[in-house]
Amino acid sequence: MKNTQKPTSAPVHKYRPFHEQIRIELPDRTWPSKRIETAPRWCAVDLRDGNQALIDPMSPERKRVMFDLLVKMGYKEIEVGFPSASQTDFDFVRQLIEEDLIPDDVTIQVLTQAREHLIARTYEAIAGAKQAIVHLYNSTSVLQREVVFRTDEQGIVDIALEGARLCKQYEATIPQTEVYYEYSPESYTGTELEFALRICNEVLEVFQPTAERKVILNLPATVEMATPNVYADSIEWMSRHLNHRENVILSLHPHNDRGTAVAAAELGYLAGADRIEGCLFGNGERTGNVDLVALGINLLTQGIDPQIDFSDIDQVKRTVEYCNQLPVPERSPWAGDLVFTAFSGSHQDAIKKGFEAMEARAAAEGKTVDEIEWAVPYLPIDPKDLGRSYEAVIRVNSQSGKGGVAYLLKADHAIDLPRKLQIEFSGVVQARTDAEGGEVSSSQIWDIFTDEYLPSKDDDQRWGRFELLSTRSSSDMSGDVHLDVSLRDGDSTHPASAVGNGPVAAFLEIVRSQGFDVTLYDYVEHALSSGGDAQAAAYVELQVDDQRLWGVGIDGDISTASLKAIVSGVNRAIRTRQAASALAGV
Amino acid sequence: MKNTQKPTSAPVHKYRPFHEQIRIELPDRTWPSKRIETAPRWCAVDLRDGNQALIDPMSPERKRVMFDLLVKMGYKEIEVGFPSASQTDFDFVRQLIEEDLIPDDVTIQVLTQAREHLIARTYEAIAGAKQAIVHLYNSTSVLQREVVFRTDEQGIVDIALEGARLCKQYEATIPQTEVYYEYSPESYTGTELEFALRICNEVLEVFQPTAERKVILNLPATVEMATPNVYADSIEWMSRHLNHRENVILSLHPHNDRGTAVAAAELGYLAGADRIEGCLFGNGERTGNVDLVALGINLLTQGIDPQIDFSDIDQVKRTVEYCNQLPVPERSPWAGDLVFTAFSGSHQDAIKKGFEAMEARAAAEGKTVDEIEWAVPYLPIDPKDLGRSYEAVIRVNSQSGKGGVAYLLKADHAIDLPRKLQIEFSGVVQARTDAEGGEVSSSQIWDIFTDEYLPSKDDDQRWGRFELLSTRSSSDMSGDVHLDVSLRDGDSTHPASAVGNGPVAAFLEIVRSQGFDVTLYDYVEHALSSGGDAQAAAYVELQVDDQRLWGVGIDGDISTASLKAIVSGVNRAIRTRQAASALAGV
Repeated sequence: MKNTQKPTSAPVHKYRPFHEQIRIELPDRTWPSKRIETAPRWCAVDLRDGNQALIDPMSPERKRVMFDLLVKMGYKEIEVGFPSASQTDFDFVRQLIEEDLIPDDVTIQVLTQAREHLIARTYEAIAGAKQAIVHLYNSTSVLQREVVFRTDEQGIVDIALEGARLCKQYEATIPQTEVYYEYSPESYTGTELEFALRICNEVLEVFQPTAERKVILNLPATVEMATPNVYADSIEWMSRHLNHRENVILSLHPHNDRGTAVAAAELGYLAGADRIEGCLFGNGERTGNVDLVALGINLLTQGIDPQIDFSDIDQVKRTVEYCNQLPVPERSPWAGDLVFTAFSGSHQDAIKKGFEAMEARAAAEGKTVDEIEWAVPYLPIDPKDLGRSYEAVIRVNSQSGKGGVAYLLKADHAIDLPRKLQIEFSGVVQARTDAEGGEVSSSQIWDIFTDEYLPSKDDDQRWGRFELLSTRSSSDMSGDVHLDVSLRDGDSTHPASAVGNGPVAAFLEIVRSQGFDVTLYDYVEHALSSGGDAQAAAYVELQVDDQRLWGVGIDGDISTASLKAIVSGVNRAIRTRQAASALAGV
Repeated sequence: MKNTQKPTSAPVHKYRPFHEQIRIELPDRTWPSKRIETAPRWCAVDLRDGNQALIDPMSPERKRVMFDLLVKMGYKEIEVGFPSASQTDFDFVRQLIEEDLIPDDVTIQVLTQAREHLIARTYEAIAGAKQAIVHLYNSTSVLQREVVFRTDEQGIVDIALEGARLCKQYEATIPQTEVYYEYSPESYTGTELEFALRICNEVLEVFQPTAERKVILNLPATVEMATPNVYADSIEWMSRHLNHRENVILSLHPHNDRGTAVAAAELGYLAGADRIEGCLFGNGERTGNVDLVALGINLLTQGIDPQIDFSDIDQVKRTVEYCNQLPVPERSPWAGDLVFTAFSGSHQDAIKKGFEAMEARAAAEGKTVDEIEWAVPYLPIDPKDLGRSYEAVIRVNSQSGKGGVAYLLKADHAIDLPRKLQIEFSGVVQARTDAEGGEVSSSQIWDIFTDEYLPSKDDDQRWGRFELLSTRSSSDMSGDVHLDVSLRDGDSTHPASAVGNGPVAAFLEIVRSQGFDVTLYDYVEHALSSGGDAQAAAYVELQVDDQRLWGVGIDGDISTASLKAIVSGVNRAIRTRQAASALAGV
C-alpha cells in the first residue's frame, strides 16, 4: 500500500523550523519520567489576558461576576487587570479594594509594562489592598528586539531592570500593602534560553527574593511555537539554571496556537514549574490561554485534588459564557454539551455494563457506588462529580440528517432547540416510539414535542399542575423588577408576587415559595420567524429539587415565554416524580 | 507569599492514577530528542468516528460533500463508514463504488467488528472498489475484558484471530478488489502493553504483512487517560517490540478527553508512528478525535509540507460546519474566527512593525515579501497562506461591555452580527470616529451601520451601484430554483435570470454575469424579534474579486434579505475599489 500523498503549493519556504530559530538541548532531561502528584499554584488571568481578547470586553458588572466566580471556585491568585493601560481596569481594581471585595486569602495581581508613568499608576491602583502581586513584563524575543524595540540584549535588560527598580521605589508609596513581584520575559518562547536566563537572574537581583517573599518568574509561551516537549525541556533547563531557585515560584503561561497548551502546561509542570496561569475554558488572545478547567479536572481523574471546586461545572460554564459573551464549545474537555453523551450503540452497551458492574461490586463490598473506584468504559470521570449526567442518545431508528428530530423541528416549526435539549428530547422521542419500527414523521415528532413540553391546547385536559394565567411586571429603573402573576395550581387559582433583577429571577422566587428548590442553569430564546405574529420561543434548563431538566415556553412576549418555560420545566419535574412514585407503589 | 489554596470536597478517592492501572516504563526513550521532519500518512475518519458522534448524523448528501472535501484537500485514506452496522453507511459505500466517485489514488477504509455476519456484510459493501482497507477491531482493555466481554486474555485474542481469519476468507469473495488490513486493539490506552503487543503480533501472523502489502496497526487512545508523554512512551515501546515492524504501518488514533490529543499525536509520531487518524477541527466522540487541521498546519509553520491543502481554510470550515451541523469554535487553532485578530494595542503595534520590517527586508533583498521568511510578532503563520487576513480590532475608545458596538446593535436594534462581521464593523466605526474622542452613542453606531451596509432610505441619494427592485423565484421540486430579478445598475434598470440550487446560488450567478468574481464564504440569518412585522436580517461574507467583505440585507422575506445582503456586499466592494483608485489618482 503506497503512500500516494502529494506535495501541495503551500509556501513552506517562508517558515523556518523552531529548532533553527532557538536552540534548546537537554539530552539528560528528567521530566518524562516524572509524575504529577499535587496541584500547582493556580493563577486565573480571565480578567486580564482573557478579557483583553474579547470582542466586547467585560462591563464592570460582568467583571465583578467573573471575579466572584473565580473566588468561589477557589482561585487564590487572580490577575484582575492592566490598570495603567485601561481606565475601566483601574476603576475595577479600585472598586475591589474600596468596597472590600477581596477575601483575605486571595491576592490580586496587576500587569504593568516597565515604564515609569505606568508603574506609578499601577501603585495608585493597588493602594489599600492587603496584598497584591505587581506583574512586570517586557518583551525579550529575538524578533521583538529586532523589529519592535530595535535594541540589543543589553537594551532589553536595561528596560527590565529599570522597571524592577521603579517598582521597588514606588512600593515605598504604599506601605500598608504587602507587595509581591512577578516578572515575565514576554515572548519567552522566541527568546534564546541563555538570554532569558540572564534577564531573569538580573531582575531577581533587584527583587531579592527570600523564603518569606518569593518572586514569581513567569515564562510565557506568548506564542506557542513548537511541540510541547520542547517547552518542557526549556522549563527544566531554566529551573536548573535560575539563581535563588528555592525562593523563586516558577510559573507557566501557555497559549494555545498549536492546540497543545494543556500539554505544554502539564509537561512544563513535570519539568519543575510551580505555578500555572490560564483562563477558564481557554479564553484568551487568538486561540486562547491554557484551559484551567481541563487542567484542574485532569488532576481529579488521577485522584489528585485540584484545590478548585468543579462540582457544578454547568454553573461555571454558564457564568463564563455570560461574562465572555462567547460560547464554550460543545466538545470542550469535561464541560462541553456533548462530552458525556454516547451515540454509539456499542459504547452505550459498555457503559451500561460498567454501571451494573460497579453496583454489583459495591453491593459485594457493602459500600455505595460513590465509595468505590470509578470504572466505566468511555467515561473517564463520573459526570455526577461535575454536576453533570451521562446521556445515551439512542437514534430514532435510522433517522439522521434531514430526517433528524432537531432538523425537522427547525425546518417545519422554526423551533431551534439548544443542544442539550436536543439530547433530552431525543430520549423522549425514543421512549415513546420504542415499540414501533420505521421512521417517525415530522408531525409525530411535533405531537410528541408539544405533548411533552407545551400546555395542551385542549382546555379540558390540563397539562400540568401549574399554569400561568396572567403576569404584570414593573420596574422603577432601580434594577429591581416587581412581578405579579396569577397562577393556577391544580384546580385553584391564586396571585403571587416577587422581586428580582428581572422577571425570570422574580418568577423563580415565586416557584421557590411554592416549595420547590429551583435553580436556572441555562436560558436560550429566539424569535419564531414563520408567520407574521412574531412569536418567541424560550428554553430553560432547570434543577428542580433533584432533577435536571428543560422547559419550553412560546408566547408573543419574550418575557412571558420565559416564565412559561419555567412552568413547563416545573410541571415536567412533578410529572416525572409522580410517574416514579406510581411505579414504586406497584 | 504562602499558597493559600484549600482542599475541596471532590471525591478523589474514586480515581486511581493511570500509572497504578497500566505500567509503562521506558527510561531509555528516544522520542523527546527527535524532530518531526515530514508529514505522516493521514487518515480522515470524519465520515465514521466523526459522523457517529453527531446529534443528527450526516444525510447521504452531506456525506458526499464531506467525502469530496476530503479528497479535494488531499487525503488519500478515508474511513467512509461502518457499513455492517448502518444501512446508511452501507448505501453510501455502495454509491461511492457504483458511481465511480473514488479517485484511483484514494483508498477507502471501512470499520468492522470481529463477527462473521458483520465481516460478510463488510465485504459485500466494498465489492467492486479498486482497493480498500478493512479495519478490524475488538476491545482489549482490562476494564472492557472484565465488564463487557467477561473473558480472559485468551478469549480476547481468539476474537481478534477469528476475525482476522474470517477477513482473509471473505477476501477471496471479491478478487477484483485489492484489500489491505488495519487492526485496532480498541481501548488500547487501557490495555497492558504486553497484552497489546501479544494480540497485535498474533493478528500480524494471520495477516502476514509484506513489503508490498503492509498491515496497519492502529493504537487508539479510545479514551485519553494520561499526559501525552505517556502515550508517546507506549508507542515507542510498541514500535520497538512489534514483529514485522518494517512491514507494519504504525497508526495513531488519539481522542481528546484531556485536551491533549494534538500533543499525543505529535509526540506519538516522534515516538515512531507512521500514520495518524483524525477529524477536521477535532470532531468525534465526546471531546472529539485529534484535529487534523491543527496537526497539518502545525507542520506548515515548521516549513514542512503537510501534503494537505489548507490554502482556503474558511471554505473548509464552512463545508465542515455544513456537514456536521456544529460550529467550529472561535478559538479553534489556525481556523477559528478570532485566531488572527489582535485586540491589544501593543500587539497591534508589534504586528505593524513586523509587517514593515518584512517589507523593508524584502526590498533590500530585491524580493517580494512572499519570498522571504515570515517573521511577524504574534502571528505564527501568514494568515494569507490560509486564505485569511489579519484583523486589528481597535476598540472604539473605551467602549466595552454594555457600551460595546455589538451589544448596542443587538440591544437596541435586534441586529445580531456574526463575529467576523463584528470585527469588520468595529474597524468601520473606528475609521469614522478616529478624530473624535469620548464614547460613541448607540444612535451614532446605528447611523454608521446603516450608512455602511444598508441602502439609504432617501431615494435621491442612491447608496450603491446595484439595487434589487423585484424578485420572483420558482421551483419545480427538481432541486433547481429559477430566479428572475429586476436590477437597477447605476441609472438603468434591467431584468436578469439564473438557475441554482436555491435563490442565493442563482443570484450569485447573476452577479457573476455582471463581471464580478464572487464566492459566498459565510451566510447567517435571523429574525428581528422586535415589532410585529417579523423582519429578517441576513449576513453574507463574500469574496468579490480580490476583496473579502460582508454584506447585510433586511427584509420581511428571508430569501429577499439574503439577496439584498449580496447586493450590499458587492456595492461595498465597488465603493472600496473606487475609493482606492481615487486615492491612487491623487
